[in-house]
Parts: sequence; C-alpha cells; structure tokens
Amino acid sequence: MTDLARFSINQMTVKQLSLPELMDACGRSGVGQVGLWREPVQEYGLTETAKLIREAGLAVTTLCRGGFFTATDPEAHAAALADNRRAIEEAATLGTDTLVLVSGGLPPGTKDLRAARERIADALTELAPYAEAHGVRLAIEPLHPMYAADRCVVSTLAQALDLAERFPAHQVGVTVDTYHLWWDDRAPAQIARAGAAGRIHAFQLADWVTPLPEGVLTGRGQIGDGAIDMREWRDYVEAAGYTGPIEVELFNEELWARDGREVLAETVERFHSAFL
Amino acid sequence: MTDLARFSINQMTVKQLSLPELMDACGRSGVGQVGLWREPVQEYGLTETAKLIREAGLAVTTLCRGGFFTATDPEAHAAALADNRRAIEEAATLGTDTLVLVSGGLPPGTKDLRAARERIADALTELAPYAEAHGVRLAIEPLHPMYAADRCVVSTLAQALDLAERFPAHQVGVTVDTYHLWWDDRAPAQIARAGAAGRIHAFQLADWVTPLPEGVLTGRGQIGDGAIDMREWRDYVEAAGYTGPIEVELFNEELWARDGREVLAETVERFHSAFL
Repeated sequence: MTDLARFSINQMTVKQLSLPELMDACGRSGVGQVGLWREPVQEYGLTETAKLIREAGLAVTTLCRGGFFTATDPEAHAAALADNRRAIEEAATLGTDTLVLVSGGLPPGTKDLRAARERIADALTELAPYAEAHGVRLAIEPLHPMYAADRCVVSTLAQALDLAERFPAHQVGVTVDTYHLWWDDRAPAQIARAGAAGRIHAFQLADWVTPLPEGVLTGRGQIGDGAIDMREWRDYVEAAGYTGPIEVELFNEELWARDGREVLAETVERFHSAFL
Repeated sequence: MTDLARFSINQMTVKQLSLPELMDACGRSGVGQVGLWREPVQEYGLTETAKLIREAGLAVTTLCRGGFFTATDPEAHAAALADNRRAIEEAATLGTDTLVLVSGGLPPGTKDLRAARERIADALTELAPYAEAHGVRLAIEPLHPMYAADRCVVSTLAQALDLAERFPAHQVGVTVDTYHLWWDDRAPAQIARAGAAGRIHAFQLADWVTPLPEGVLTGRGQIGDGAIDMREWRDYVEAAGYTGPIEVELFNEELWARDGREVLAETVERFHSAFL
C-alpha cells in the first residue's frame, strides 16, 4: 500500500525526545512527518517550533489536540471554545491542516452521555468555520469506550461521523485510530462511510496489549506486539480511499523509559514488518 | 418498578463471606435471592451448597459462569465443552435456570475476532440442547470492549443477540449488565430487541467508576457511586418487558476489604436509593 513516505511519528511515542532531538532523529531515520502535541510545542515555543520544523524540512501531519467540549458550566464552555480557537491558530502556525479533537468526558456529577454529545455539536458549530478560515480541518477522534466517563463521550466511529456529518467534510472529519476501534465489528463499515465522504482526516496506529495499566492511559502497545491485525485495518482504510499520512501514536511507559532514538527506529521497523 | 423482592446479591459482591455467612446475612437483610459462582460453590461442595440454599429458603438467580469457548486447539475446545456441561449440571443441581456465559478472549497469538466469535456459535450448538435437557438457559454476557482481547470477544449486546438468535430463546439468551453496556448508544434498542424475543435471561448492575485499576477487573463501583444512570437502564429493561431478578455484581477490592454484612446492607440501600 505504501512505504515510509506516508509514515508519521507522533511526538508522544517518543516524548522523551526534545523537539530538536526529535527533528534530528527523524532526519537520521528518514522520517519526514511528525504529529505534534500542544503542550511540548508551547513549552518549546510555538514560533520556535514552527521555525525548527521548517528548517528540518518536516511536514506536520496533525496537532493533538483540541476538544474537551462537554462542560455544562457556561464559563468553562467559553474557556474551552477560546482554547480551541488558540489550538486552531497553533495548527495553522505549525503548517498542519489537521487538529485532532478529543471530545471530553462526563462533567463531574452528571450521567447524561447524550446531552454531553450534543454539547460537542454546539461547540463544533462555533469552531468549524473558524477552523476553515485558518485552513485547518477538525478531526473528531472516537476514543475506546473505556474512556467514556472521564475523557471522551464519543466512543465509536459511528458516533463521531454522526457529529461530523452535520458539517462540511472540509471542516469536520474523524480520526481513525486502531487502538480505539479494533474491537468494533461496525468500524469497517464506518471507515467506508467516512472515506466515501472524504472525512478520514487522520489515521493513527497503536496496538492493544494486556494487562492494561492503572488508569488505562499509558498501555498502548508497539505495532505488532498486541491483538490488532494491523494489515486488516490498513486494508479497510485503503479500500475507503484514504491516501494520507499514517501516524504511530503510542503512550507507553516502557517505551518512554528507553532511548527515544532507538524507539523511533524500532517503530519504523515495526511499521514495515507489521503494517506494510 | 420493583422492590426488594426482585433484588439478588451476586456472591462476588461479598466474596469475603463464606456460603453459610452469606445465607445468614441474606436472612438478616431480607434478601431472598443470590447469584452464585462456580469456584466458591465447588470449594464448599456442590451438594452441600444446594442443601444450604434449600434450607435457607433462597432462590439462585444465576450461576456464573460457563463459557471460554474460543480456543483453537481441539483438545482445549473439547475440554471447554466438557467443563460447560459440568457447569450446566451444577446450575441444575443448585436449582437455577440460568448459566451466565463469558465467551473467552483471543487465543494467544491470534488476532481474528470474527473467527473467535464463530467458534462460540459452534460451542453453543453443542451445549444449548444439553442445557435445555437440564432445564437451564444459557445467557451470553457481552463484556465491555476493554476485555475483547483477553476475556470476551463478545463486546456488544448486538453481537450477543446475533449469536443467541441462532438458537431458540428458551435455550440461549443474553445477560444485560450495566457496567458493560452503559457507554453504548445502541444498547437501548438492543435491550428492546432482546426483550421482545424473551432473551433477557439475566440483568446485572454495577456502576462505572474511574480511575480503572490495573488489569481493569476489580474496579466495578457500588451502585450510585459512578457514571451510570441506573434508573435509565432500569427503564430500558422494564420497557422491554423484563420482570426477572436484578442482580448486583461488583468486583471491587475496597468493598472486599470491608465487613461483608455491612457491604450487603449498603448494597440493598443503594439498590433502593439509586435504582428504584
């Protein structure tokens, strides 16, 4: 289907590397694309990061992440919108056309998933035109259902598309991430639905390994180490017409404890041996 | 909808209590129904447990659990079938008409969820008539998608019903458990589907609390402590025509560390305050 030209390393996979170290490691590994996160970019400096990226000749595939739209408190809701406008501006400054959105969980003390999902739609109505004006597409990421309470009430690709389809495809699409979708027998048909409408705005890989760690945030497995048939998902996305970048985004304490350059090289190797 | 007459305490909720202690605590709390687990029953003795139950005048709502049908190795598959026949016999001896099935995860080294699900159907074909001959109904329990790799490849109520509907409803139905289904926007319609066909063979409650513990097995929250609107799910199941027992099944290290009688009394109180 592809070669290293479509590979992108998400910054979180090798978060032990500083931005200059990441640029350098990408150069040495022949990696031409990166997915960035707002926090380390802000820490290094937005303008400085954009300059570094330009000088290294890298492409930025996504910025992670906007979202967290589910607050019921009006002030918190307004603050979330303001923060997402800044995220859109940051994406534009970094030269990426895609901002990944993690929608947010249930506000403390509430139990209404449906209402929380509807507040996401309200926020997107405000933000989608602003994103378009900055040349940025929003990519709603369904997270695994185990995050529904505390992180993301959008748990399936079908739900993400139900939200996205209220907006033009060049404004709002979805992020397809194997880690979050692999268990779902409906996901293949939803990938086809997303692809037919040009709404696959990002494609990310991580493998499913058990046992899950406490808090279930940092247990994403290296490609090939877990339960997911990566080629099966490659084929779904390819059949849906997606020809964009393929980002590897791992949150994994064991990988973070190792030398970041070594992890990057291993990730490239796994991309070849387990995905291509 | 109901009162304590429909309440059932699953043995795992108060696993610190021996079977005689459980019988005694139920008597003192006015609880007339229990869900049992095979391991503690075998440890105490099957015949002895059945006698104890009869003498206490309790009803056994379910036996947990059969299943683990996904092995590819023929010997392991045959052993699973033999073990499930024993589970059916045990259910009959204990006087319950319902055996809960946890289907099993991906066999080590395999990545084919679809094939694993098909092997469950093969096993049910063998076991369903055997269960009927013993007056026992099989109740396929979809587990939360976070268990798909290592415990149960049946992740949604829709999948469980797709399997169950290959058999008569008096042979094979489903277990509806709030903990496993609460995130799923399709579950309400699937509960209606299950109820219309008389396939809700068990209804269990547990609440969703975060953060999840390592291994994600022992983090089920006390009713009312978490993200699940219990009355919403009560209404779905009631609207589907279900009039059977309502079992509270919690796996929770904090509850297990407390006095079991106190936990039982608290669980009855929560059933009243958060579910009824």
